[in-house]
Amino acid sequence: MDSRQNRQIVLVSRPVGVPEPHHFEVRNTPLVSPEDGQFLLENLYLSVDPAQRGYVNDENNYAPPVPIGAVMRAMAVGRVIESRHPDFQAGEYLYGWFGWQDYWVGGPEALLRRVDPSQAPLSAGAGLLGINGLTAWLALHEVGRPMANNTVVVTAAAGAVGSLVGQLAKLAGCRTVAVVGSDEKGELCLSRYGYDAYVNYRQPLEEALSRACPEGVDLFFDNVAGTIADTVIRRMNLFGRVVQCGTMSIPVWIPPPQGPRFEREVLTRRLRIEGFVIFDHIARFDQAAAELAQLLKSGKLHYDEDIETDLARAPQALVDVYEGRNRGKKLIRLRE
Amino acid sequence: MDSRQNRQIVLVSRPVGVPEPHHFEVRNTPLVSPEDGQFLLENLYLSVDPAQRGYVNDENNYAPPVPIGAVMRAMAVGRVIESRHPDFQAGEYLYGWFGWQDYWVGGPEALLRRVDPSQAPLSAGAGLLGINGLTAWLALHEVGRPMANNTVVVTAAAGAVGSLVGQLAKLAGCRTVAVVGSDEKGELCLSRYGYDAYVNYRQPLEEALSRACPEGVDLFFDNVAGTIADTVIRRMNLFGRVVQCGTMSIPVWIPPPQGPRFEREVLTRRLRIEGFVIFDHIARFDQAAAELAQLLKSGKLHYDEDIETDLARAPQALVDVYEGRNRGKKLIRLRE
Repeated sequence: MDSRQNRQIVLVSRPVGVPEPHHFEVRNTPLVSPEDGQFLLENLYLSVDPAQRGYVNDENNYAPPVPIGAVMRAMAVGRVIESRHPDFQAGEYLYGWFGWQDYWVGGPEALLRRVDPSQAPLSAGAGLLGINGLTAWLALHEVGRPMANNTVVVTAAAGAVGSLVGQLAKLAGCRTVAVVGSDEKGELCLSRYGYDAYVNYRQPLEEALSRACPEGVDLFFDNVAGTIADTVIRRMNLFGRVVQCGTMSIPVWIPPPQGPRFEREVLTRRLRIEGFVIFDHIARFDQAAAELAQLLKSGKLHYDEDIETDLARAPQALVDVYEGRNRGKKLIRLRE
Repeated sequence: MDSRQNRQIVLVSRPVGVPEPHHFEVRNTPLVSPEDGQFLLENLYLSVDPAQRGYVNDENNYAPPVPIGAVMRAMAVGRVIESRHPDFQAGEYLYGWFGWQDYWVGGPEALLRRVDPSQAPLSAGAGLLGINGLTAWLALHEVGRPMANNTVVVTAAAGAVGSLVGQLAKLAGCRTVAVVGSDEKGELCLSRYGYDAYVNYRQPLEEALSRACPEGVDLFFDNVAGTIADTVIRRMNLFGRVVQCGTMSIPVWIPPPQGPRFEREVLTRRLRIEGFVIFDHIARFDQAAAELAQLLKSGKLHYDEDIETDLARAPQALVDVYEGRNRGKKLIRLRE
């Protein structure tokens, strides 16, 4: 047994919908040493992601829910400080399922990718070169398949994924339209993320969308679902593609909420609606990250981070993300 | 001006939902002669299709609605009896947009494909080798992409498309489950169309579907939409595909009816939902028809026809199709 303590954020009750701080507790546990085939790392940057709602709710999802009493599932960038695995050395940086905690002990099954500090700042390993950038890149190119002069609409467009999708679609020759919840975020989308237009969904959406997309929508990159998505889908062109990347606007899915049926839209305009989960694409992470790092170095890509430094605030940071109060990728920095 | 009369079924008022006989009239008009670049044909087999509801309703569709006072839009197999176009000779059989009428005069813009009487009986040119078989073949293979041991669920499974989809999916190595509106049709699906199981949607559907698909659904070929489709989609497996080929269970789409939202199903199980309209695939008609004709000749494919001979009954025949009273592809035979 190691003498160090490991601070952990533990799930203590099962939320319905978006988890709140009272669903979590801070727990101090003695740090265990790595066994053969394991390594110990210290977390540097913890990720705070909308997908974490799905990790704690007891409803159908792409992974079983976090058990009550367990450390909150989260991705993080960490540094190996002790290794008993031949493929990992102390001093290496890794990105993986290391949880909302100070330290992590285990084997390579938790690894998502190795982080190369020469590619980009370490924090980018959890955002731009982590699931946010990888999602933007792979979902846009492999599912959305943008073509020159397409009109691309992105929801949660100022967010960690949406801000990158807009820039990548623009680089692919598209006209980009941001859907956001405030004019302030809309202006940010225009000035920093290169969007051609924005729509504030708190205004009458149908009119605003008609003005922003006079030639309809070819590709809809949807992070929110619900009534905003309903309005976009009804403006889609023949052979339009919908990338279902998130469902952030709807907190509870059991029982499923009602909405307008889409079968006739899908049929008559030959729409393709497809779900995207980044973990199906791990084999392509390094290639996509290399392309993103190259764009970053050549000044063609901007990303923003919203960093806190108090581990205990992680649950509140997640609420903030759900309420749109973050300004860029939300991270908890534990160490430099 | 030709001295012959052309009997035509004309749309006289705009229906909401499924058209009824009173929306049509029989009109006798003098037959006009073909001009340069045109040909005259006599219709042999008129097609009666669920898609015709969409042709007469004034709602979004893949073609503008049939104008009031115009001949009802329909596909038919006809024989050229006079030609002033160098590519068409008297005696040739053609399949195209020749309408619910005795004769058709015009140019090649109405043609869908040439009918070769050595491939199959002439009537098959409007069904098995016409849009029904072509839809089954192309939608199943190009959008559905069946894989061996997939569980494939087909709605309107005893219908002109569904009966063929089941057989083709079976030939692709799949397990096939028919959804039908009566046990009589279910038994037909098992005995004649080779389905492995059937579900009568007038019984409690969720239980019946669970029994028929114990390992979930990989491919859903949907001709009906609505509550039946809702139940199937919730049983779909990871990476499941939905071919949206028809929406027959829902007569009126303006305003859109409500149903359970699917974004979460699509996202978490990476479903792909895609609309299919056969007229996007005209370039592949002859190839697909040749494959279907080959299967027919080798005894691997069965199809059924439900033939009437009274042109004036065409509107009632369409109602019958909507109410499931046909037994196979519905056709009006005007001549041999």
